[in-house]
Amino acid sequence: MSVATVRCFVGDEAVASWPDDDRGLAYGDGLFETVRAHAGTLPWWPAHWQRLQRGAHALGFALPRRERVRAEAEALLDGEGGVLKLIVTRGGGGRGYAPSEGAAPYWRLSRHDAPPALPQAGLHLRWCELRLSLQPALAGIKHCNRLEQVMARAEWRDPDIHDGLLCSTEGDVVCATAANLFVLSDAGWITPAVDRCGIAGVCRDWAMQVLGAAETRVAVTDVEAAHAVFLCNAVRGILPVARLRDRSWRPHPQVLELQRRLAAEHPAFATEVS
Amino acid sequence: MSVATVRCFVGDEAVASWPDDDRGLAYGDGLFETVRAHAGTLPWWPAHWQRLQRGAHALGFALPRRERVRAEAEALLDGEGGVLKLIVTRGGGGRGYAPSEGAAPYWRLSRHDAPPALPQAGLHLRWCELRLSLQPALAGIKHCNRLEQVMARAEWRDPDIHDGLLCSTEGDVVCATAANLFVLSDAGWITPAVDRCGIAGVCRDWAMQVLGAAETRVAVTDVEAAHAVFLCNAVRGILPVARLRDRSWRPHPQVLELQRRLAAEHPAFATEVS
Repeated sequence: MSVATVRCFVGDEAVASWPDDDRGLAYGDGLFETVRAHAGTLPWWPAHWQRLQRGAHALGFALPRRERVRAEAEALLDGEGGVLKLIVTRGGGGRGYAPSEGAAPYWRLSRHDAPPALPQAGLHLRWCELRLSLQPALAGIKHCNRLEQVMARAEWRDPDIHDGLLCSTEGDVVCATAANLFVLSDAGWITPAVDRCGIAGVCRDWAMQVLGAAETRVAVTDVEAAHAVFLCNAVRGILPVARLRDRSWRPHPQVLELQRRLAAEHPAFATEVS
Repeated sequence: MSVATVRCFVGDEAVASWPDDDRGLAYGDGLFETVRAHAGTLPWWPAHWQRLQRGAHALGFALPRRERVRAEAEALLDGEGGVLKLIVTRGGGGRGYAPSEGAAPYWRLSRHDAPPALPQAGLHLRWCELRLSLQPALAGIKHCNRLEQVMARAEWRDPDIHDGLLCSTEGDVVCATAANLFVLSDAGWITPAVDRCGIAGVCRDWAMQVLGAAETRVAVTDVEAAHAVFLCNAVRGILPVARLRDRSWRPHPQVLELQRRLAAEHPAFATEVS
């Protein structure tokens, strides 16, 4: 996926290049959002910004002005669709972990092509070996410390495997490397709680509300015994799961209906149902 | 601490600015070393490079050529002392966690002033609230996912507190925010194992060998009941601890002897004993 264009900013100022003293590069001391765009607009922008605010509150640093970021994002999209990525870091600082007080945030926007369509029949998943560590202080937010996801995604190269499911060090199922997980159990739709690890996805929030899904601890056996399983994220929408180890699922009417509903609310995702 | 000079490289090539598509900024997908310099030389360079190699093996990416990095580092030092910081990342890649295959590493060197001297009578420490998560896949290596250290260091602003001790989510003592920990127990010198979290420090390795210290699980009560406590890192050397909550320690002869021995082996640390 090529980087079409990148714009860098320090506080309110556009800058020609990313500053040398960035704490984002030094420590992953930042947050990011990947936002699906449609015809130059960002339909889920308010939800993305709210998560960014929760993250900035947790990490204790300032965000740039929302209106400025939105305006620069739309200027960068220039009427097109695709994916917009925003990174916001704590800004500059010396060597050493102590956060700088009142530093202007560094932020950058990049525009990317929309990802290629995935098979409508559903995804083929695997179980990852890597276990996610438990860190309540960082759980839920979309921060830039993502080595666990990088290492988990490096476990396979087979292009027919679309994503991998991750368990925590305590054995609960948490998410896929780049998506949240929903499981249709006998008791209804459930999704793993993200209060100790994992990310509170924007599409996850939407699906929880629509389905009335419960946040809970999810066991490997819950997934393998499920009536239906889907992944979701804010870039690809609702992704039915077709295979996992020796289990397979046909497209479930409730998942197909959820895809149709998302496409109706957010036309950017209409192509996923084609 | 000001950044005196920064040099950036892609593989073997010097570049004018840090590339836009860096996975270090995106995910903290990189490693770093902070190396004490003395009169233009880097006395512990082999140990730093070995740790870098262990990290690159764990993360599965290529390092730049060792001789090239060493030569550029010494050119940057230009006969001076201080601190040299090296960051090496997996290099460029598209949006998404899947690591790029065979990418040239991105790396940068920066030169910083030596840190100000700390009180020879010893450090004043606190206990941090934040607990370190357990992640054996990343333990020991000096990777760029350092939000836990940033958040722990943000817990206090009192300049009279020199560092904070961190426990794991299971309650064992692991390290300080920016140093390893040694404790003189009834059974001799012990230091926390770093197989589930924490960093295998270069100065820690040196001190373990000199003292014949044992790697083990260390409890809060082990620290509070200790005959002596010191911190160490490769930038500041051996740092006696004087106070922790309601415990205080006088400088211990074995710690002072260790400082003298380090100063004799590595003159860069001689000022710490002044």
